[in-house]
Amino acid sequence: MQIVIPLYDRFTALDAVGPYEVLSRVPGATVTFAGVEAREYTTDTGMLTIRADAALADVPSPEVIVVPGGPGSVEAAEDEALIAWIRNAHETTEWTTSVCTGAELLGAAGLLDGLDATTYWADMDMLARYGATATERRVVEQGKIVTAAGVSSGIDMALTLVARMTHEEVAKAVQLGIEYDPEPPFDSGSTRTASPETIALVRATIAARDEAAA
Amino acid sequence: MQIVIPLYDRFTALDAVGPYEVLSRVPGATVTFAGVEAREYTTDTGMLTIRADAALADVPSPEVIVVPGGPGSVEAAEDEALIAWIRNAHETTEWTTSVCTGAELLGAAGLLDGLDATTYWADMDMLARYGATATERRVVEQGKIVTAAGVSSGIDMALTLVARMTHEEVAKAVQLGIEYDPEPPFDSGSTRTASPETIALVRATIAARDEAAA
Repeated sequence: MQIVIPLYDRFTALDAVGPYEVLSRVPGATVTFAGVEAREYTTDTGMLTIRADAALADVPSPEVIVVPGGPGSVEAAEDEALIAWIRNAHETTEWTTSVCTGAELLGAAGLLDGLDATTYWADMDMLARYGATATERRVVEQGKIVTAAGVSSGIDMALTLVARMTHEEVAKAVQLGIEYDPEPPFDSGSTRTASPETIALVRATIAARDEAAA
Repeated sequence: MQIVIPLYDRFTALDAVGPYEVLSRVPGATVTFAGVEAREYTTDTGMLTIRADAALADVPSPEVIVVPGGPGSVEAAEDEALIAWIRNAHETTEWTTSVCTGAELLGAAGLLDGLDATTYWADMDMLARYGATATERRVVEQGKIVTAAGVSSGIDMALTLVARMTHEEVAKAVQLGIEYDPEPPFDSGSTRTASPETIALVRATIAARDEAAA
């Protein structure tokens, strides 16, 4: 089973590496990091560089695609080669998935029209532009299209996917394999639980980042 | 604040990228991936390659080090240059930390002698070789030395660290920033909750992997 994770400049590392860490442990699965060009891609922070071992053109028909998000998704959604690859690959995938604002790329490929979907909490408005209905679940399954919420949610999404793709017992083994028994030291991981001050602080940080990048 | 994550061949990606994703979001923090050589390092699966932007010799005195684990940690523990770097850097760090079998490298550097520590659940026996007492908590703090359990636990450890390094409010903002509101689809992430069959399956998978690598 071939799983492709498309990279682009200024993606968010954990969006890609969380699902990779889960899916690469499925017996018989191969995860390939690919880009419009086979080259190194640097994440949103500028502090981490991951190599795309393949060009997307060389992996046209994977069984699974996982599109990561990140601040670079806005520009990536206008990259015709990347969006055309997603649209074409989707025709033959078994699962087409996104994490965080990776949903914007599925949207730009026309895949979310009329569906429930999710994305990063601060970007939920974006979904309507692509005809999707914003949904506050952490993992939203719509047939073979699965969207996940922000960044760390890709781990939960990928475990769900492993159970669907193979067997619940495999997913449970992978969960133990990565010792995924989360104990967040605070209860501040969603807008339901975070304080208004925390939400405002993160929104301000995002705005400053976007302004610096503009 | 400089944070260094040392890489070596056959490390586990999420051990490094989980803490990176948390720590890189702390205002004023710089995370540097470094190796004995500044080159690309490929993870345990052979499917993901991350670039070490610096040689360890060029970053001798970071405030924080986070040592990832992975099957390559056994060989890495015998890499004198890597172990000497950890030992020397530790003299001036504010925090010296490990995820998963990254604890083996702290042990090889002589840093765990007489301390409580944790590591990957299947490798807990290893700690005694370095004079450490195996402890089943997910994050074990002993002064400035912090060890975390397997793979995904680095996210919890890093959030704890952010609160200690800065302020609880910063850690909460980072948690919301990565939307870390985990919803594992199964309750199989530790040996306390996984079934005996799941534990046996993962142990067999690890044994087969180690045999293939031998």
